[in-house]
Amino acid sequence: MTTTTALAESLDTPLELKELHALDAYWRAANYLGAAQVYLRNNCLLEEPLRPEHIKNRLLGHWGTVPGINFCYTHINRLIRLHDLSMMLVTGPGHGAPANLANLFLEGTLSEFYPELVHTKAGVTKLIEMFSVPGGNPSHLHPGTPGCIHEGGELGYALATAFGSVFDNPDLITACIVGDGEAETGPTATAWHSTKFLNPVRDGAVLPILHINGYKISSTTLFGAMSDRELLDLFTGYGYAVHIVSAEGETPQERAESHFRMASAMETAYQSIRRIQHEARHGQREERPKWPVVLLRSPKGWTGPQTVDGKQMEGSFRSHQVPAIDCKSNPAHLEIVEKWFRSYDLPALFTDGVPNSELLATCPIGDKRMGMSSHAYGGAVRKDLALPDFRQFAVAATTPGSVSLGDTGELGKYLREVILENEASGNFRIFCPDEMTSNRLGAVFQATHRQFAWPTNTQDDFMSPEGRVIEVLSEHNCQGWLQGYLLTGRHGLFPCYEAFAPIVDSMMNQFGKFLKVSDEIPWRKPVSSLNYLLTSEGWRQDHN
Amino acid sequence: MTTTTALAESLDTPLELKELHALDAYWRAANYLGAAQVYLRNNCLLEEPLRPEHIKNRLLGHWGTVPGINFCYTHINRLIRLHDLSMMLVTGPGHGAPANLANLFLEGTLSEFYPELVHTKAGVTKLIEMFSVPGGNPSHLHPGTPGCIHEGGELGYALATAFGSVFDNPDLITACIVGDGEAETGPTATAWHSTKFLNPVRDGAVLPILHINGYKISSTTLFGAMSDRELLDLFTGYGYAVHIVSAEGETPQERAESHFRMASAMETAYQSIRRIQHEARHGQREERPKWPVVLLRSPKGWTGPQTVDGKQMEGSFRSHQVPAIDCKSNPAHLEIVEKWFRSYDLPALFTDGVPNSELLATCPIGDKRMGMSSHAYGGAVRKDLALPDFRQFAVAATTPGSVSLGDTGELGKYLREVILENEASGNFRIFCPDEMTSNRLGAVFQATHRQFAWPTNTQDDFMSPEGRVIEVLSEHNCQGWLQGYLLTGRHGLFPCYEAFAPIVDSMMNQFGKFLKVSDEIPWRKPVSSLNYLLTSEGWRQDHN
Repeated sequence: MTTTTALAESLDTPLELKELHALDAYWRAANYLGAAQVYLRNNCLLEEPLRPEHIKNRLLGHWGTVPGINFCYTHINRLIRLHDLSMMLVTGPGHGAPANLANLFLEGTLSEFYPELVHTKAGVTKLIEMFSVPGGNPSHLHPGTPGCIHEGGELGYALATAFGSVFDNPDLITACIVGDGEAETGPTATAWHSTKFLNPVRDGAVLPILHINGYKISSTTLFGAMSDRELLDLFTGYGYAVHIVSAEGETPQERAESHFRMASAMETAYQSIRRIQHEARHGQREERPKWPVVLLRSPKGWTGPQTVDGKQMEGSFRSHQVPAIDCKSNPAHLEIVEKWFRSYDLPALFTDGVPNSELLATCPIGDKRMGMSSHAYGGAVRKDLALPDFRQFAVAATTPGSVSLGDTGELGKYLREVILENEASGNFRIFCPDEMTSNRLGAVFQATHRQFAWPTNTQDDFMSPEGRVIEVLSEHNCQGWLQGYLLTGRHGLFPCYEAFAPIVDSMMNQFGKFLKVSDEIPWRKPVSSLNYLLTSEGWRQDHN
Repeated sequence: MTTTTALAESLDTPLELKELHALDAYWRAANYLGAAQVYLRNNCLLEEPLRPEHIKNRLLGHWGTVPGINFCYTHINRLIRLHDLSMMLVTGPGHGAPANLANLFLEGTLSEFYPELVHTKAGVTKLIEMFSVPGGNPSHLHPGTPGCIHEGGELGYALATAFGSVFDNPDLITACIVGDGEAETGPTATAWHSTKFLNPVRDGAVLPILHINGYKISSTTLFGAMSDRELLDLFTGYGYAVHIVSAEGETPQERAESHFRMASAMETAYQSIRRIQHEARHGQREERPKWPVVLLRSPKGWTGPQTVDGKQMEGSFRSHQVPAIDCKSNPAHLEIVEKWFRSYDLPALFTDGVPNSELLATCPIGDKRMGMSSHAYGGAVRKDLALPDFRQFAVAATTPGSVSLGDTGELGKYLREVILENEASGNFRIFCPDEMTSNRLGAVFQATHRQFAWPTNTQDDFMSPEGRVIEVLSEHNCQGWLQGYLLTGRHGLFPCYEAFAPIVDSMMNQFGKFLKVSDEIPWRKPVSSLNYLLTSEGWRQDHN
C-alpha cells in the first residue's frame, strides 16, 4: 500500500481510504445492478440460490462495456461532488444501457421519472425485472432514459453531440464516454478536432473519456491494439492533454491503485479545464489550449467471469454481450453466473434490498445528478428565438421576371438580423460544411464571424475565436454538433449542398427516431426543429 | 546554394541541378496547362496579347489545388523513373482535374485515349479548349480521365480507395493525394488507420501525400492551422513515419530547396516502403511497421496572382477556385491573368506549341506512366472468380417448415469454399464492420482469418496478418476499400446490418454514378459488382 498512499497523498483532493471504500462499493453495486438487469427476472437480490427459472427468457444488453461505464460514472460523480459541478453525460456505447440505468437508479434520478424505481427492495426488484422485457426498459439508451440526449448505438456521433451541448453553455462540462469500437468510425475520428472550435470564454467544455476495453463485437479494436506511445502521440497531435489510466483488479484491494489513478486523472483534467477557461475569461487566451482527454484502459467485462467453457471471458471479445449465455439451460453456466454475482458481496452493498447509505453518499444530489441536468431536457429550457418580420426582407417584384436576385442572398440578410437579435441570448448557431460563402449567405458575416479557436492567418476573412457560425468540412460534425445544440434547448441551421446531405442520411434517420420516441415521453418537451437549407439542388451530383 | 548543394548531395539518389531545372520546367508547364484550361478558349499558347475574347464564357475548375497536385505528380514521376516502379495515383481534390489532365497530357497518356491530344500545337490547343465546355473534359475527375479510379469531389474517400487498390497487389504502390479540406472529413480521419490492416507480404503500399495548402473554400483548414509539432504527433500516433515538406518560391531558383526537400522525402518514403516489404517478405515482419506519409505544405494557388483587387490571392482561400475571375470584363483582371500566365516563361517550355523534350524526359514511359497503370483499368485485368456449385449447399427441406436453419449460416459455408477455391489467385475479400460472427458467417473462419497487422492478444480468434476478411468498425472504410479493390479488377462482399447501410448511402450513390459513366466509355470494361449482404433487416433501427 505504500505506492497507493503516496499516490493518494499526491492528489490535490486526497482520496482517503474511507472514500475509496465507498467508491468501490458504489461501483460494485452498479456492476451488480447492471449485470442483474441483463440476466434476472426474479430472485433479484439473490436471497435464494440461483435457479434457471430466475433467468430471463431472452438475454439482451451488452455486459462487456458496463463495468467501464460504471467506473467512469463513479469518478465523474466524485468530481461533481468535490467541485459542485454542473455536468451532463453523453454515452457512446448505447448497448451499455444497463450501466446507465444502474447509475441513474443509485443516484435516485430514475425514481424522479419512474416513481416505482425507488431505493427499496421492491424498487431494486422492479429495476431488474423491467429490463429488456416488453413494456419495460429497452436494452439500449433511448429518450426514456433520464439525462440521455444521444442513443449511441449507431456508433460514432457521441463526441460531436457532446461538443454541441456545450456551445454557449459556459458553465457546463459534458462528460462523454466514447467506446473504442465507435472510435474506429469516421465521425468520431474527426470529432476529436472539435476543441479547435471551442471558445473557452462563451462555451463550456467536454471531458471525453475514451474507454479502451480492447474489443468490439468479435475482434480487437484499433485503439486496443495501439501502444500507449501511439495513443499519446495521436491525441497530443489532435491537441489534447492526454491522461492514460490503466484500471484493473479483481478485489477492492487490487483495484485501489486504479481508483487513485482515475481520480487523479479526472481531477487534473478538471483543473486544466478550469485553468483554460479562467485564463481566457480574464483576457489570457491560450493559443492552442490543451483540453484534457482521459484514455481509460480496462478489461472488457471487468469483474465478470474469468472463463466460460474453458475460454477466456473477462478481458476478451467474448464478454462483449452476455457471458455464460446458456445459464438457463446449462447448470455450469448458471453456476458461473451465480458465483460472479455473489462476488460483488451483496450483503455489504444492500440491506434488505436498500442500497447502503455509504455508497449512496458518493453520488451528487439534487439537480447536480447527471440524470437531472436541466441541459438534458432541452425542450424545457428552450427559449423562443427572436425572429425579425420576414416581410421586411421581401424583394419587390411586381412584374414576374423583372428582378434577378439569388434567394439565398436575401436569406442571408434575414439570417444576419436573426443573429443580431439573438446575440445576447447566444442560442442560435449555423453549422455549415464550409459553404456559407458559396451558398451566398455571406451577409451573416456583417453580424458575426466563423468561430475558430486555433491560430489563423491575418488574411482570413471573418474568422475569430467567437462567432455564431461554425464551418468544418465534415457534415458528420455539423449534424452531430447541431443535434447536441438543439437537444440542449437551442436553435440552429445546417446549410448544405443537396448532393452532400446524404452523407448524414443515417444520422438524420436516427435523430428522427429519437424525436419520435421523445414525443411519447411526457417529461420530454419538444426541442427546436433541425433546419436544413439544401442548396445546389440535384441528387445526381453532376458538378459535385 | 550551399545548403541546397549539401541537401542535394545528401540524397541517396542525387538530384543534379540539370534534373532540377527539368523538373521545375515540367512543373511550370503543368501549371500553365492547368491554369490555361480553366481560362482560355483560344490563343492557347499566348502567341498574341491576351484579349477578352480569348477567355472562356464560364470559368470552372479549381486553380488553388492545381500547383500542389502538379508538384506531387512531378515528384512521383521522378520516383517511378528512378526505381522503375509500378505506381497508380488516387487524387482526392477532384476539382483539380485541370492538374491531372495537364500531367496526363504531358506524359502522353491522354493521346492514347484521345488521339487528338498529342504533343503538337494543335494538341495543346485542343486540350485547353475542350476543358469545361459541353462535350469536352468536365471540370472534375471522372471515369473518362485516364488512370482515374476515384472522382474525389464528394470528399473523404480517396485514402480508403487507395488502400483498397493495393490489397493483394504486392508490387503496386498507389500514391494518394489527400486535400487538407477532405482531411477534415470523418471518412479520411479514420482511413489513416488503414496501415494497421496492410499485409506487407501480400499487399502493396500506399504513399499518402497530405497536401496542406491551408484553405478550403473560404476558410483555414484544420490541418493548415495545426503546428508542425501537432501534425508530427498526430501522424506518428496514427502509426506513420512522417515527412513534413514545406514548399514555396516564386522563381525556379527560389524553388530549388523545395524540390530538394520533396525529392528527399519521396525517396526516403520509398526506401522505407521497400524496407518494410523486404523484411516482411524475408520473415522479419516488423511489429508496428511505420509506413511513410508525406505532409506537403505549399501556398494555395502557388505561382498564381499575388493579389487581386488589393487582396491577397496566392496563399489564401481566395485562390481556391478562379482568381481574377472577371478577366473577361475587367481589364485589370485580364492583365493579372496575362502577367501570371507569362510568368511561366512559355518560350522555355514549348517550341511552336510542342512541349520541350527536356521537360518531357522527366516523365516515366510506356505503361509505367500513372495514367497507363493496368490496375486503374480493373475491368480489363479482372479474372473471373472460381465459384463452387451453389446446389451443393442447398438445405434439404422437402416439407415446408421441417428444417430450422439460418440462411447466413449456410451462406457462410458457401463463402468458405469461395475463399478456398480462390486463395491462390487472391482476388476475393470480405470487408465487414465487425459483424461476420454476429451475422453467422463464421464458417469462413474455417478457411481464413481476419487480416490485421498490429499486435493482438493471444486469446483473439481468427486474427492474423494475413486473411481474406477485413473487419473494422467503419462502414466508410469498408466501402472505400471495397471500391478500390473492385475498381482494380477484383471481387468482394460487404455484409452489413441493414440499419447501418445508410451510413454509406452517399458513397454508394457516387459509386453508382462512377459505374454509370464508365459504362459510356469504350475503354472502361465492367468491373465486378459491389455485393452487399444486408442482414438484421429493418430501417427502423429498433434494436440498433
